[in-house]
Amino acid sequence: MNKVEPLVWKNNTLILIDQRELPGKEIFHDIKTLKETHEAINVMIVRGAPLIGFTALFGMVLWLKNHPHFQQQELKDAGSFLKTARPTAVNLAYEVDRLILKVEEFLEKNDQGPALFEFAENFAKAQMEKLYQDNLSMAKLAAIELEDKFGDRKLNLMTLCNTGFLACGPMGTALGAIEYYHSLGRVSHVYASETRPYLQGGRLTAYELSVSQIPHSVTVEGAFSYLMREKLVDAIFIGADRIVSNGDTANKVGSSTLAIVAKHYGVPFYVVAPTSSFDLSSGTGYEIDIELRPEEEVLGAMGMRICPEKSKALNPSFDVTSSSLIEGIFCEKGLIKDYDPKNVHKIVKGE
Amino acid sequence: MNKVEPLVWKNNTLILIDQRELPGKEIFHDIKTLKETHEAINVMIVRGAPLIGFTALFGMVLWLKNHPHFQQQELKDAGSFLKTARPTAVNLAYEVDRLILKVEEFLEKNDQGPALFEFAENFAKAQMEKLYQDNLSMAKLAAIELEDKFGDRKLNLMTLCNTGFLACGPMGTALGAIEYYHSLGRVSHVYASETRPYLQGGRLTAYELSVSQIPHSVTVEGAFSYLMREKLVDAIFIGADRIVSNGDTANKVGSSTLAIVAKHYGVPFYVVAPTSSFDLSSGTGYEIDIELRPEEEVLGAMGMRICPEKSKALNPSFDVTSSSLIEGIFCEKGLIKDYDPKNVHKIVKGE
Repeated sequence: MNKVEPLVWKNNTLILIDQRELPGKEIFHDIKTLKETHEAINVMIVRGAPLIGFTALFGMVLWLKNHPHFQQQELKDAGSFLKTARPTAVNLAYEVDRLILKVEEFLEKNDQGPALFEFAENFAKAQMEKLYQDNLSMAKLAAIELEDKFGDRKLNLMTLCNTGFLACGPMGTALGAIEYYHSLGRVSHVYASETRPYLQGGRLTAYELSVSQIPHSVTVEGAFSYLMREKLVDAIFIGADRIVSNGDTANKVGSSTLAIVAKHYGVPFYVVAPTSSFDLSSGTGYEIDIELRPEEEVLGAMGMRICPEKSKALNPSFDVTSSSLIEGIFCEKGLIKDYDPKNVHKIVKGE
Repeated sequence: MNKVEPLVWKNNTLILIDQRELPGKEIFHDIKTLKETHEAINVMIVRGAPLIGFTALFGMVLWLKNHPHFQQQELKDAGSFLKTARPTAVNLAYEVDRLILKVEEFLEKNDQGPALFEFAENFAKAQMEKLYQDNLSMAKLAAIELEDKFGDRKLNLMTLCNTGFLACGPMGTALGAIEYYHSLGRVSHVYASETRPYLQGGRLTAYELSVSQIPHSVTVEGAFSYLMREKLVDAIFIGADRIVSNGDTANKVGSSTLAIVAKHYGVPFYVVAPTSSFDLSSGTGYEIDIELRPEEEVLGAMGMRICPEKSKALNPSFDVTSSSLIEGIFCEKGLIKDYDPKNVHKIVKGE
């Protein structure tokens, strides 16, 4: 079904499709160094929390290949550098730290050299396979929840940004759950919010829905209220870049606006994200730093200037959705509906 | 201050600036027939409820000029045709019907011919002068309300779509009120929501704010929640295309979404619209037909294609904001805060 592989690891090279150019053009970049990996994440050749994580893992693998002998501090410095590419994306830091830990454990009993490189490479590959299994688990949990709530009738679902295979590699999170429910014959129509300024919804989600032959309409963010007042949406599924202890969620700008409108109209709003998106060191969403991206993204669209020359723009990349607005969070370990931090910790840590 | 006159009546010709091309290019169209007027309204060379109304008035004046002798049914047919150019815009129907009535009254005591044309022309001109006085009244009422609520501190205000002189001719409604408050030295910053798909905010409001040298930032509709959660907005002012008996308001898509988010965060949300925008024959917002515009507007931006070839879009031009979300409606006859239909009728009809 997936006509495009967003990330391929082949001949010690990371091959990334340039998601900035989709759906118009399919351009591939061969990434061979950590610096190129940093650039690819920073300029958004890759986007989507999980794919950023995998890209980071293979970026570190590339660094190990290019540095057969290193001091442990150099490894840490490489990781710190890579983490600066997208400061809000917790998967990036999570995967980098995990790989560094694994390498350190390996080096307690083994020497540097080809075996270490092979070990790191296999670790990165295994994470992608694990994500596929995890996302399938989440999609199955979401299907059970929808059946509980709506029975067997076909639903109109809505999503924002892109959380499908282009964001995740093997299988999507929120869009993965939607595509899975469609595969059960239970999806009538999908509304893909276009997601200004970067238009991941209009470009990428619409592309994935087209590829998967799922009936869909693209809408503007301003239409949230129209869609729900007209009762066109049964349930909403979005992803998350970061989820903190009380269930507050950072995701693409627009998510929180959508959640508020959904609450107003009584439409259930779900988050689908793997446990690697949880940052349990933060208590509430107010502790999350929101990345401000370049003004030019808002001052123009599709490479064309919209605004007058002297106008400024404010371009927050994410917003924070209070857990009080979220009907449930699906992670691979279960469905979280009780946002007491103790319960969230228990499920996420699998205790 | 106004560097651009959006509508000029000169030598029996209606000269309209093409607002689709702003701020990049200043292109003027000479309109000489009713059919050209219909086209100008339909393809959105002009937009904004009041300017659509004035354009319609001069469109009827042009028809009278081109038809020195006519049957009264032909006049009515001309009006009916013109009203189909934008079915949701109540100003269009209002001004057409008013002009027809005035012409009929004139003809009770006078003959067809040059005097009728001159009468109609003067009527149209007088409406523009009246709007200027009315909008100034609304802006002064808004200033009193803001001073009552916030004292003399400088405020951060927000708006959506374009409701300034480009929308209204002589002076704006919501943006007119903002510009007036700025002239009193009380505005710190204005957030102009870009207003996809047509980008009236990013193009036209930003242009007017630039011309008026008011500090401003353009934002995407998705950022509504971010802006208010970060306490960046003190109050919101928008216009209205139609207001019904219970205060429910139809305005540019996104308005209702913005109002719901404002209510959630306790930010006051105001509507500024002349009494000509009131449709007291409708009881609630559920009676308002929402115009669906061409899908292509959402499937692309700035003339560039965004979405895959096979994707569809849903493109409602307006949405309905429940009066329960509106802090107050300023019209030239007063500030409406009590939305009991009796009270609304009383103020609007000046009883």
